[in-house]
Amino acid sequence: MTNLIRERASSSSEMLTIFGDDAYVRAALNFESALARAEAAEGLISNHDAEVIADNCSALIVDIPYLAEAATHAGVLAIPLVQQIRTLVGRQSESAAKNVHFGATSQDLADTALMLQAKAAGVLIDAALERMIAATAILTERYTATPMLGRTLLQGALPITFGLKTAGWLTALDEARSRFISEQKGSLVLQFGGATGSLVGLDGKAFNVAERLSTTLGLACPPLSWHARRNGIAGLATALAIITGVAGKIARDITLMAQPEVAEAFEPRIPGRGGSSVMAHKRNPTGCQITLSAAMRTPNLAATILIALPQEHERGLGGWQIEAPVLAELYQLTHGALTALVTVVEGLEVDSDRMFANLKAAGVGFDVGESLALARRALENRRA
Amino acid sequence: MTNLIRERASSSSEMLTIFGDDAYVRAALNFESALARAEAAEGLISNHDAEVIADNCSALIVDIPYLAEAATHAGVLAIPLVQQIRTLVGRQSESAAKNVHFGATSQDLADTALMLQAKAAGVLIDAALERMIAATAILTERYTATPMLGRTLLQGALPITFGLKTAGWLTALDEARSRFISEQKGSLVLQFGGATGSLVGLDGKAFNVAERLSTTLGLACPPLSWHARRNGIAGLATALAIITGVAGKIARDITLMAQPEVAEAFEPRIPGRGGSSVMAHKRNPTGCQITLSAAMRTPNLAATILIALPQEHERGLGGWQIEAPVLAELYQLTHGALTALVTVVEGLEVDSDRMFANLKAAGVGFDVGESLALARRALENRRA
Amino acid sequence: MTNLIRERASSSSEMLTIFGDDAYVRAALNFESALARAEAAEGLISNHDAEVIADNCSALIVDIPYLAEAATHAGVLAIPLVQQIRTLVGRQSESAAKNVHFGATSQDLADTALMLQAKAAGVLIDAALERMIAATAILTERYTATPMLGRTLLQGALPITFGLKTAGWLTALDEARSRFISEQKGSLVLQFGGATGSLVGLDGKAFNVAERLSTTLGLACPPLSWHARRNGIAGLATALAIITGVAGKIARDITLMAQPEVAEAFEPRIPGRGGSSVMAHKRNPTGCQITLSAAMRTPNLAATILIALPQEHERGLGGWQIEAPVLAELYQLTHGALTALVTVVEGLEVDSDRMFANLKAAGVGFDVGESLALARRALENRRA
Amino acid sequence: MTNLIRERASSSSEMLTIFGDDAYVRAALNFESALARAEAAEGLISNHDAEVIADNCSALIVDIPYLAEAATHAGVLAIPLVQQIRTLVGRQSESAAKNVHFGATSQDLADTALMLQAKAAGVLIDAALERMIAATAILTERYTATPMLGRTLLQGALPITFGLKTAGWLTALDEARSRFISEQKGSLVLQFGGATGSLVGLDGKAFNVAERLSTTLGLACPPLSWHARRNGIAGLATALAIITGVAGKIARDITLMAQPEVAEAFEPRIPGRGGSSVMAHKRNPTGCQITLSAAMRTPNLAATILIALPQEHERGLGGWQIEAPVLAELYQLTHGALTALVTVVEGLEVDSDRMFANLKAAGVGFDVGESLALARRALENRRA
Repeated sequence: MTNLIRERASSSSEMLTIFGDDAYVRAALNFESALARAEAAEGLISNHDAEVIADNCSALIVDIPYLAEAATHAGVLAIPLVQQIRTLVGRQSESAAKNVHFGATSQDLADTALMLQAKAAGVLIDAALERMIAATAILTERYTATPMLGRTLLQGALPITFGLKTAGWLTALDEARSRFISEQKGSLVLQFGGATGSLVGLDGKAFNVAERLSTTLGLACPPLSWHARRNGIAGLATALAIITGVAGKIARDITLMAQPEVAEAFEPRIPGRGGSSVMAHKRNPTGCQITLSAAMRTPNLAATILIALPQEHERGLGGWQIEAPVLAELYQLTHGALTALVTVVEGLEVDSDRMFANLKAAGVGFDVGESLALARRALENRRA
Repeated sequence: MTNLIRERASSSSEMLTIFGDDAYVRAALNFESALARAEAAEGLISNHDAEVIADNCSALIVDIPYLAEAATHAGVLAIPLVQQIRTLVGRQSESAAKNVHFGATSQDLADTALMLQAKAAGVLIDAALERMIAATAILTERYTATPMLGRTLLQGALPITFGLKTAGWLTALDEARSRFISEQKGSLVLQFGGATGSLVGLDGKAFNVAERLSTTLGLACPPLSWHARRNGIAGLATALAIITGVAGKIARDITLMAQPEVAEAFEPRIPGRGGSSVMAHKRNPTGCQITLSAAMRTPNLAATILIALPQEHERGLGGWQIEAPVLAELYQLTHGALTALVTVVEGLEVDSDRMFANLKAAGVGFDVGESLALARRALENRRA
Repeated sequence: MTNLIRERASSSSEMLTIFGDDAYVRAALNFESALARAEAAEGLISNHDAEVIADNCSALIVDIPYLAEAATHAGVLAIPLVQQIRTLVGRQSESAAKNVHFGATSQDLADTALMLQAKAAGVLIDAALERMIAATAILTERYTATPMLGRTLLQGALPITFGLKTAGWLTALDEARSRFISEQKGSLVLQFGGATGSLVGLDGKAFNVAERLSTTLGLACPPLSWHARRNGIAGLATALAIITGVAGKIARDITLMAQPEVAEAFEPRIPGRGGSSVMAHKRNPTGCQITLSAAMRTPNLAATILIALPQEHERGLGGWQIEAPVLAELYQLTHGALTALVTVVEGLEVDSDRMFANLKAAGVGFDVGESLALARRALENRRA
Repeated sequence: MTNLIRERASSSSEMLTIFGDDAYVRAALNFESALARAEAAEGLISNHDAEVIADNCSALIVDIPYLAEAATHAGVLAIPLVQQIRTLVGRQSESAAKNVHFGATSQDLADTALMLQAKAAGVLIDAALERMIAATAILTERYTATPMLGRTLLQGALPITFGLKTAGWLTALDEARSRFISEQKGSLVLQFGGATGSLVGLDGKAFNVAERLSTTLGLACPPLSWHARRNGIAGLATALAIITGVAGKIARDITLMAQPEVAEAFEPRIPGRGGSSVMAHKRNPTGCQITLSAAMRTPNLAATILIALPQEHERGLGGWQIEAPVLAELYQLTHGALTALVTVVEGLEVDSDRMFANLKAAGVGFDVGESLALARRALENRRA
């Protein structure tokens, strides 16, 4: 049972893959492998057991629909997944079977898998941002001195240059990217706390195990487990919503300029894109639509993550369980917005004659010396 | 590429099926069939063409991943889907091929398909509500006179009966159901307006076509097409969020009573449900968790629908495109909440001795005459 | 300490007055008066005591800043307010002093006062809606046959008439109003339940007291007290957000038509309104701005009310306390939106020549026969 | 017309003062003074004119209700306020009157005033956070080794120490504070762009004026004006919502521990606080209630700011106008939450015997060696 038509309408297939079942289960199995090996390295279980566990995690072929039903029934993925690993491992070694998932709790598995997905997702987001920033910088260089009507409150105001407008986009993208990078630093962390975050039963070696796990999985090691301390997730969620909002601002401007009566800039012509099922003459701003739609959905998804912050005691009821699907949507919509928009920005068709004509019609003069200077200065500041 | 593990954690497979790709495409094809037949009945196209179109809509085997990519590229489902139908139909009749989708716009297809899905979804929601209401009425009958500590601001207050508490649940469920039924009446309507809602090109027979379409598809016929008038969608969305909130209130109460120090009521024991991956003694309130999680997600999804109300001109950009996926999530989460909770309410284990002991410990007396009378009266009012 | 500049920027002074301190305290005192009299009528307290209480509630001069501090310290308004009444009453009668607030809980006072405010607020909302509907009907009559370019996805599409566009506004306003009226019926109810909703200590006459209170205060009498059953509040909140969204759609269309390059419709010229602090030529769509701003704020305020639905036990902690300020904001923003927009709609300057010119420039023909018929039909349906 | 009772129920009088009318007008007047002086220093206007303007800004006595009406009518505060200054200044110097607000736009005034308010508000927030952090560190030191039942999904799990629980609070507070400080760095910036952000008419000295203004007002000077680039506001809004969410988590835990059947920790006894209007025995967790209420309101307020990000062209319509009131509410609720909670945490009554008894009753052992080590380690990491 798939939901591809609506999912693909708002996200990229790369990002949907990262948060799909296969990648989720793979991340969960990587956690279990890495855990066994870290525990073996600390002498808590035998190397042999660890290798049997790791081999079987690699080999396990998961029946996703069955696992989805079992996880739903159990209330957590860890129980049926660990059970499947144990059954498989148990054919080779009874002691190894007992040592699967040793010292971990179901949320350790779920949160670490989510962070592994978030890390992979962050690479896609950052690459898309870089490409968007590069394209916007090129626009700014190109149109630094191109006069157009500046508009405020949807009314004509005074002259600017198109490069000053795009310099604003560029500055916003730079800022949003830098917030995202900074949030990732604090948030892409291992979860490993055991049942109540107290890491019992690991013979005083829990810290060492955690550090080894961190290294293997490529996630930072937090000062304490964070089963009920969800600031990091919240920071990622809001940084993503801000990125999408910035993309939405660019899309808003382009769609307003692309109105037939304004006609200053257009999405590039791509065969089969933005057509109408009845009107041959139409060229809909489909890339911008995807972006604007994303910018209308991400704020409330971020709010849902924020609303879940006051989680109960050592591990909450209801709150943490919403984060994984909602954070996945945030990454999906943000990447969908960026990938849709980057094509638009890279191929933007600008009609500078029409810009000039609209400015002339407004009768507010043509003085753009300061706009030009500001746009140049913004570009120089970035290079510095 | 599926996302079943996380989807099934918050919804039922029946509801996920209703909003899955297959059902969506089927609803879209039903629209095209019914449209062709309605137009034939009004003499706008030939009966033969209509039957060829309808036959091919029935016969069409859709490659979902391909269609998802094509729809994403085009920006709407209608274009590639209508193209596929046309290609197939064109093998039998060129004139029939031309008459596919005649007079309709892509949003007619999308909105009508969504309403067909919403109608089917509403049947599931209502059945779940009925079952929940029945179970809650039984609880209320059974515990009308069972004394317990009434609690306000999470502190002990004065005695009530458990039946008075559940009478409150029951009243809330009744109210929420009645709002939902009323919203469905106004909202489950056909969309048929053509490119700009003006129904051009149908030779003055557009109203008749619309009425035939309505009858065939089982959707009410609205006074005007509603491409940019989205109150109905908003009414459904908020009614669903209120249902989920009411379910959340029940789940909140049960989870608080199920705390080990309170120990007054518990989710039923179901093998394999609510266990812990590390603590054999645990019995997690998994049904309530699903409900509480849903009640934390639906409010902001409803808000996303509300935020999209100010749509541009005859058909909006960005706003209407978010409704289908968000409304689907609202139905999915609401049904997930109800089906998880109904099992809990039907099988609720009530420890009336412990209720009495907790009341006694509070030292606030035992007078529950008024509570009993209120609970009985609430039951009688419902029967009347 | 006031906050008038920002409050008045988004609401009317009438609505701000309804939710201001004086009206709130007055509503609370009315509750206490009516309660005393209802209890006297049922023989629970003496008529003399009731009259002393009622007289003093009328006479009480409240020091608002002092009361605000005291209520904040106590955590509820009822405690210091009842204390003030008691002190005053006690100078005349000790027994009357004891009988102030007899059998009621602080939330009875707070919720009933809120409902009295909501009822008064609803009268303003409905009057504004009626006026808006009348103005929109007039526009529709006047421009039934005025051709303009229909626009979809912010691109030119096919011809419509301006009357068809406003018929869509009108239908949306009618629907939103009817939902609001229906929600008011179920929601404007008395709160009277005593400490835990069990109405203890009223000698079996609680129902009678409640019915008398209802009659006096002009609020319906609910089947059970609703301290923790907040559907009604949620229904009002969402109905208000939908009204504002509908107003926002109208404002969106007008602001897009008022862009200088489109120039089809404008807010009326009102001296001193919509000017710029630097550009004499500007005429900002200030009325529409207020409306659009409201439509961006109300959805998430409604969501906040929805998120609070799962309240704990007999009276919740944290959830119900947010409803009064948030519901007040919803009424304030909705009335602000309607009053700002109604002036715009009533005085809308329509340039039908420019509409025709824009349509001609689009090159999509001039056939508006169906649009005209649809707009007329919509007007006739309303009259029927 | 005041709204103090409901405002004070959720915020501190200090914070309400910062966002009240007087402080807002004062901030606006400071902007105009500083602007005149900066322009004089750059030779754009005479020193005499600047001093006349500055003197009159200091001397101006504002009739707030009148100004609120005028600002509402005009659509912006700047127009009537600048008019009032001009009238006053004009009595002394006509040229000075012309030079009031020279080169600035109404949004320059509004945004800079908002940032001045935000800066003052941030000082209060940070002081409250520091005090909260200090109190939480003391709790952690004190209860590092105090055993209690760890709880997950509202069920008993395994032993922890109370100090481990509070170490989690402490880590969350530290993180939330550090995000807030970092967001302030990028966001507390001057707004100065003139009508369309192009700073025309300042004779090439606009940058210098901006830098002087920044220095005088104590706000950073941004690379470009940010009339339609609202990331900074969004970053502040979400950082505040995260702080409130962290406070909400602490309040959630305390209220659950304060339930009569758990009875492990309580808000301090403060005469007149948390009482009931009918039940003398009650001691309501009023401080925690304020905090929890704030944590339910701030997420959707932050989402409202996020939804407004895609603002139109050089200065938006509807979006930016919502930020000032919504951001004010975020500061108000966050400070209300922190000041309510800090008293609770500082005076928290902990019953370690009852903690031990509850742990014993759970029958899950008493081993808390790891918890103790983790709590200690967390404290040591902070000191390092």
